[in-house]
Amino acid sequence: MVSCEESMRALAFSARGQSLIGQEMFKVLERARHIEEAGVKIFHLELGNPRLPPPPQIVAGTISSLQRGDVGYTYSAGLPALREAIAERYSAHHGCALDERNVVISPANFLISQFLDLVCNREDRVAFFTPAFPTYWAAAAHIGLAVVAVPLDAKADYRLTMHDVDVAIAARPRAILVNSANNPTGAVYSQSVLDYLAQRCESLGIWLLSDETYGDIAYGASFYTLARTGLPHVVVMSSFSKIFSVPGFRMGYAIAHAAVVNKLTLSNSTQLSCLPAFTQIGCIEGLKVIDDYTAAVRERFSRTNAEISDLVNRSNLIQCVIPTAGFYVFADVSAVTDDDMDFSQRLLERSHVAVTPGRSFGSEYSRHVRVATCGHYDDVREGVVRLIDFARTLVG
Amino acid sequence: MVSCEESMRALAFSARGQSLIGQEMFKVLERARHIEEAGVKIFHLELGNPRLPPPPQIVAGTISSLQRGDVGYTYSAGLPALREAIAERYSAHHGCALDERNVVISPANFLISQFLDLVCNREDRVAFFTPAFPTYWAAAAHIGLAVVAVPLDAKADYRLTMHDVDVAIAARPRAILVNSANNPTGAVYSQSVLDYLAQRCESLGIWLLSDETYGDIAYGASFYTLARTGLPHVVVMSSFSKIFSVPGFRMGYAIAHAAVVNKLTLSNSTQLSCLPAFTQIGCIEGLKVIDDYTAAVRERFSRTNAEISDLVNRSNLIQCVIPTAGFYVFADVSAVTDDDMDFSQRLLERSHVAVTPGRSFGSEYSRHVRVATCGHYDDVREGVVRLIDFARTLVG
Repeated sequence: MVSCEESMRALAFSARGQSLIGQEMFKVLERARHIEEAGVKIFHLELGNPRLPPPPQIVAGTISSLQRGDVGYTYSAGLPALREAIAERYSAHHGCALDERNVVISPANFLISQFLDLVCNREDRVAFFTPAFPTYWAAAAHIGLAVVAVPLDAKADYRLTMHDVDVAIAARPRAILVNSANNPTGAVYSQSVLDYLAQRCESLGIWLLSDETYGDIAYGASFYTLARTGLPHVVVMSSFSKIFSVPGFRMGYAIAHAAVVNKLTLSNSTQLSCLPAFTQIGCIEGLKVIDDYTAAVRERFSRTNAEISDLVNRSNLIQCVIPTAGFYVFADVSAVTDDDMDFSQRLLERSHVAVTPGRSFGSEYSRHVRVATCGHYDDVREGVVRLIDFARTLVG
Repeated sequence: MVSCEESMRALAFSARGQSLIGQEMFKVLERARHIEEAGVKIFHLELGNPRLPPPPQIVAGTISSLQRGDVGYTYSAGLPALREAIAERYSAHHGCALDERNVVISPANFLISQFLDLVCNREDRVAFFTPAFPTYWAAAAHIGLAVVAVPLDAKADYRLTMHDVDVAIAARPRAILVNSANNPTGAVYSQSVLDYLAQRCESLGIWLLSDETYGDIAYGASFYTLARTGLPHVVVMSSFSKIFSVPGFRMGYAIAHAAVVNKLTLSNSTQLSCLPAFTQIGCIEGLKVIDDYTAAVRERFSRTNAEISDLVNRSNLIQCVIPTAGFYVFADVSAVTDDDMDFSQRLLERSHVAVTPGRSFGSEYSRHVRVATCGHYDDVREGVVRLIDFARTLVG
């Protein structure tokens, strides 16, 4: 075949095709792969790829399903039993009034694109509170949206305030994305501010996507789901990836008004047909033990993140806000660099530590890097020690 | 939550959101579900959901991978070993000059949307030869494309001719979709016509997606892959769903110029992050036995389709072209109805047989239905007998 460079000139892509940027951490993973192929051990702190063993029930349920031969097509909205189990959990655990018709199964990362595609036209405005998860930027760029970035205050531990909500609303966006518990900051937003945001959006007809992927891993603050509001413009999404340590299952869900669920089901039917039945059946088994499992996960990350944050802050060189949820530390490396891309690249090549550059979370974070603390603890600790040592080599 | 109808008025979706139509056969599946919940047996002839046991190696490979704990994220382009195995098979089996850089893993149904999204802007023209697979219509509607439908001649057994190619090219579309071996007709197109199509597209800068999902199930004619051409504007896609009887794996691939593979990888990264590793590892194991397995599959469907076609044509009421590939029979029911939707709905309710209405393949096929012959043989046969009996009740 013709060389890549030669034909890139001749091959004309669409506007959306030209706007594809992807997720930086998957590019880091790919770069790391080439170093690993030379036999070098890489400390993977770039992806939120939990290395805790998942609940045995979820894997056993998946394997049993495969052994029974559940390898055919299934419903575009997801298995009814899984949709019901999720509705029941939100009803029992969060006091929501939901049933199967309010739940659709889809990969959580895909739901970000599906939501924006469903409610925004090209050149519409969408508001994020930053730092914000890379897929929000990638999906907005792909769809051709103008992003209104509302930076949260590090001095207030990156917690959302009513003032931040007012700033976002004042831009009159078509949609707002909010993410509590937050990736990358580990902040958990208060019920009063989240309700204020939801009510203002509903009253103005602004769509709101509440990404609650890390809600079950809030250990330092009380988590509130916007599914409680039952408002038609509020779409809640979450994932089994993080709470069950199975990101490779590519399984998440949205909770929404039945009319929105119907649209997302058509989106699935058009694009994915359906999802595998066997991993959905595994998730049904997982949901039976979710409370015990996530309690252990919270205990684990509460301890790990306290230790890693402490290690970072004791460096007196790089620093971070102490997270209250999730498994990331968003580290300020401004004392040693103003170029996170260069810093990350050299950290990977010299010290064999992979992190995600801060600007993936917003252009103003080019002096930050995100460290995922969900790998094997010794590896995470060694990776962070190497990160600090590398930073020291850059001083003066 | 508020009722569906009430809020549909208030909820404003995007232009793309309004244009979502989905795939009709998944709606039929959902309707059939409600009848099945009442304890009634439904004969499922609506979906290409193969009920042959898959090769044991693919399931065993998937289960071993799950047991080893391969439940984390992996590369957005797919596992290198799977990409290499596909490149090797096309090199060995079809004489293509390919390597890993020419292969990207993605669900085949999604690749249709990904391809159109990558190369077409809203309101661009896209040409299909009809009857054409429902996802082509759904994806084009979703993206906002103008479809140029080029009907193939039933009297010529729905085979593509150079004249058909000229008609499609004359419309100056931005892209053309071609599907040999064909769903729903079972036609296999000749190398000379396919090469003519590819060369004309390349010379005019028209993108060509060659959907070769059923290529390995061509039993009555010799299958030719356009991957042989190595042309930069030609993107080949295929799936493991049909050739391994595992549609629930949701696993397919595209073969393309490295620049296009890079774009599709960014599309995956933005939308899906990646696919499960364990099902990819299962497919690697499956590829080791593909030649023996698909030989048995071809033998099976050659016999089944001959028998089912014969049954249909002996009715002297409904009729079909005898397929030379795949596992569908595209039945002309014009002797008894001019409304395939009504016909299909009543067939489901009265005779408990689910089929796909013909207009899903193009508006001019409202006097056809598609019958999938890939279920358990006795069920397929019984379903077709019921279909014929139902048709007889409609004869004036």
